[in-house]
Amino acid sequence: MGDNKNFVKDITNIEEDFAQWYTDIVLKAELADYTDVKGFISIRPYGYAIWENIQKYADKKFKEIGVKNLSMPVLIPESLLNKEKDHVKGFAPEVAWVTEGGENKLEERLCVRPTSETIFCNMYSKWLSSWRDLPFLYNQWCNVLRWEKETRPFLRSREFLWQEGHTIHETAEEAKEFTLKILDIYEEILEKFLSLPVLKGQKTETEKFAGAEATYTVETLMHDGRALQGGTSHYFGQNFAKPFEVKFQNREGKEEYAYQTSWGISTRLIGAIIMAHGDNRGLKLPPQVAPIQVIVVPVAQQKEGVIEKATEITNSLKKEFRTEIDIRDNYTPGYKFNYWEMKGVPIRLEIGPRDIENNQCVLVRRDTLEKENVSLDNVQKRISELLEEIQRNMFEMAKENTIKRTTIAKNMEEFEKNINENQGYVKTMWCGSSECEEKIHELTGAKSRCIPFEQEHIADTCVCCGKPATKMVVWGRQY
Amino acid sequence: MGDNKNFVKDITNIEEDFAQWYTDIVLKAELADYTDVKGFISIRPYGYAIWENIQKYADKKFKEIGVKNLSMPVLIPESLLNKEKDHVKGFAPEVAWVTEGGENKLEERLCVRPTSETIFCNMYSKWLSSWRDLPFLYNQWCNVLRWEKETRPFLRSREFLWQEGHTIHETAEEAKEFTLKILDIYEEILEKFLSLPVLKGQKTETEKFAGAEATYTVETLMHDGRALQGGTSHYFGQNFAKPFEVKFQNREGKEEYAYQTSWGISTRLIGAIIMAHGDNRGLKLPPQVAPIQVIVVPVAQQKEGVIEKATEITNSLKKEFRTEIDIRDNYTPGYKFNYWEMKGVPIRLEIGPRDIENNQCVLVRRDTLEKENVSLDNVQKRISELLEEIQRNMFEMAKENTIKRTTIAKNMEEFEKNINENQGYVKTMWCGSSECEEKIHELTGAKSRCIPFEQEHIADTCVCCGKPATKMVVWGRQY
Repeated sequence: MGDNKNFVKDITNIEEDFAQWYTDIVLKAELADYTDVKGFISIRPYGYAIWENIQKYADKKFKEIGVKNLSMPVLIPESLLNKEKDHVKGFAPEVAWVTEGGENKLEERLCVRPTSETIFCNMYSKWLSSWRDLPFLYNQWCNVLRWEKETRPFLRSREFLWQEGHTIHETAEEAKEFTLKILDIYEEILEKFLSLPVLKGQKTETEKFAGAEATYTVETLMHDGRALQGGTSHYFGQNFAKPFEVKFQNREGKEEYAYQTSWGISTRLIGAIIMAHGDNRGLKLPPQVAPIQVIVVPVAQQKEGVIEKATEITNSLKKEFRTEIDIRDNYTPGYKFNYWEMKGVPIRLEIGPRDIENNQCVLVRRDTLEKENVSLDNVQKRISELLEEIQRNMFEMAKENTIKRTTIAKNMEEFEKNINENQGYVKTMWCGSSECEEKIHELTGAKSRCIPFEQEHIADTCVCCGKPATKMVVWGRQY
Repeated sequence: MGDNKNFVKDITNIEEDFAQWYTDIVLKAELADYTDVKGFISIRPYGYAIWENIQKYADKKFKEIGVKNLSMPVLIPESLLNKEKDHVKGFAPEVAWVTEGGENKLEERLCVRPTSETIFCNMYSKWLSSWRDLPFLYNQWCNVLRWEKETRPFLRSREFLWQEGHTIHETAEEAKEFTLKILDIYEEILEKFLSLPVLKGQKTETEKFAGAEATYTVETLMHDGRALQGGTSHYFGQNFAKPFEVKFQNREGKEEYAYQTSWGISTRLIGAIIMAHGDNRGLKLPPQVAPIQVIVVPVAQQKEGVIEKATEITNSLKKEFRTEIDIRDNYTPGYKFNYWEMKGVPIRLEIGPRDIENNQCVLVRRDTLEKENVSLDNVQKRISELLEEIQRNMFEMAKENTIKRTTIAKNMEEFEKNINENQGYVKTMWCGSSECEEKIHELTGAKSRCIPFEQEHIADTCVCCGKPATKMVVWGRQY
């Protein structure tokens, strides 16, 4: 018989050392593990199942608006990467190079894709000829490499999994519209599916994607008040189309360059789920994305009929919910309760001999830890309600944290005070200069998260330089 | 108005130059395209949709027997690759090396995975401690690189997509059993889903996987009589477990090394579908894997009400079948008929003003090109029947080709005559020596496909050396 292990004791206190708490959860909940190569993780089955659920949900949404999947090569010739000047400047410092293949030195270095704009454009220039071919709405689910110096599982890995959508359009208007349509899908994924409230807006010039004309973002706030970029959607205009000669005969019979977008979400979102929702008992998963929605734990399982009844209930629940049963005979029920709380399963169903006598079971919510007795005749319906309630409540809890940690600053004194006390989002007016952005970063460690679509008038002058300002920006320290 | 283009004229005759015919289909049906790097293709949306359907089908089967997905790093340190001697000997000559990352030369070369036994074993040694943890039934869907000299889209690409399953077990028996369970799933995927009849058996020592104790295979025959390896499942015993120290405390409390398997199918299967089923009109897709099962082509679509009616039918068919409508106004119906035949769509539904008057439409099967008039009241049901019939008939046609091209040889004279006349499978007795395998390969270009599970007694002596022989082997030239 294993001991009645208290996982809480094994996990660093969330308020004391958030970074160590995060690492503890990643490893103990078996979401991922380190490998022998720095910055490369293995996403373990429990973590990967979360990613599969995100993929399924997002892929369906993309397909509904006409996006098709394809596959582009993982290696990009150096000459291709070099074609768009801003882009190569942004990415060249952090790529990995293949220089040998099949026992020979290669004539040209090939980089492992850090992102695939260049290779998409190269193929699009071959595939596109007439306005009738447009739009190309293509996406790929794949791995990419970025040779980061500081690495953390999910948040900043040298390899990560993502989807990268790349579209080309007949007109600038259509492309811009599509960029925002994708941003809406990202908002929905974060808010409805992952219970993560978002801040939607446009990145500043300094923070936009290398080579883009405009970058839009959904930002979300973690438990400790740091911000995390949840997904970005870029409008390129013809910035890539021109050097890559992605052109078509337009309706007037003239040659024109295509208008382009790209957009992505990645396994970073798993990091966001952990850091926005988790607590001292461990992971807390929104029901929609949880690999296991209901865990059935029999009590006094050695007693006659208990395992049989628990299995019967499990099998019937399986038809509607992702359900598993824990009948390991070398652990106590107490150990199992802690274990599945640590793994973040939204609902625990306990059932013992007395419950069976009374035709009932106990349901325990992971989000509030509230217990209730439920008749077995009613259990299916009650679980269905609870899962919805937990999904909503987790959003509300994250929203509350965001609101609590959002402040307004009219000058740098207020800015510094607010961010040191609250972390979180700081709203200010901004003159539009990158000098002020840099200065703010130096003074506070915060970067501009975005220029929100929903603007407020906070003051007449820039928080930093005091010059006239009309734009409100939200700032925050980031992951 | 575009011309009434005859795609058949654009495609090389299948009997005259099968290799060129294959390339024509790959490019014209927009399954894949070459990129700037030799041996690296882009799988275009139509080809990728085939792969997605294979993935969905296979993934469901794997999960039904308890397999879980995860993700391992794409890069493997050289020292790790070197740990199992047979394995490194087999793969080192064809790997690509990352030697620079983030503008620095790496201390140790990292190879882009050609397969992931080494990295799985490395992680398994960290994760495994007790017999209670076993089995690990894990799989990943990913890309791998093998620096082949000769390359062909899908069949032999330097990068390809696949799934690689890696399992470890408590006993040799359980692992062996699992190896064969997977082989059964592969058989089902090929036969039921892709209409490809298979030959099941064990690879000879010469042909088995580098590092394996036994390799099992499902082989399938192409239109031209060459064989293609459809999927393989390997039993490793403790060959990797020992050097990688994948060990556990067994039920007796003693330390023991785990018993291991690995198994994979890849985007090669798309090549197999093309080459086993295609004809001079182009691709021919088995209904279950076809991205589009029914293509609706309105006739005289400029006439009032035609597009409306065709759209109505399309929308109603969409609920049950993967259905699309072609209302491009710059092509004739004739062009469209040829186009969708070339793309291999199993059923074409034609509908014009006269059909609408008669409350009917025309259904045309891609496999036999047979036409029939069908009442609109009955069209759903008829399509459902036809799709099943096409799926079955395509299997029968491929089976017929296989039977026609399978011969028996009792001596090398017969062997050479048969393979030169028929290509195909040649069944012979074999003494078991690799010298005879080599000699047969030199003389005929054929390699052993496998030692089939279903043995026949053809003769008492080896086809090559004339010594006593008890095993029947099937030989063939291969892709």
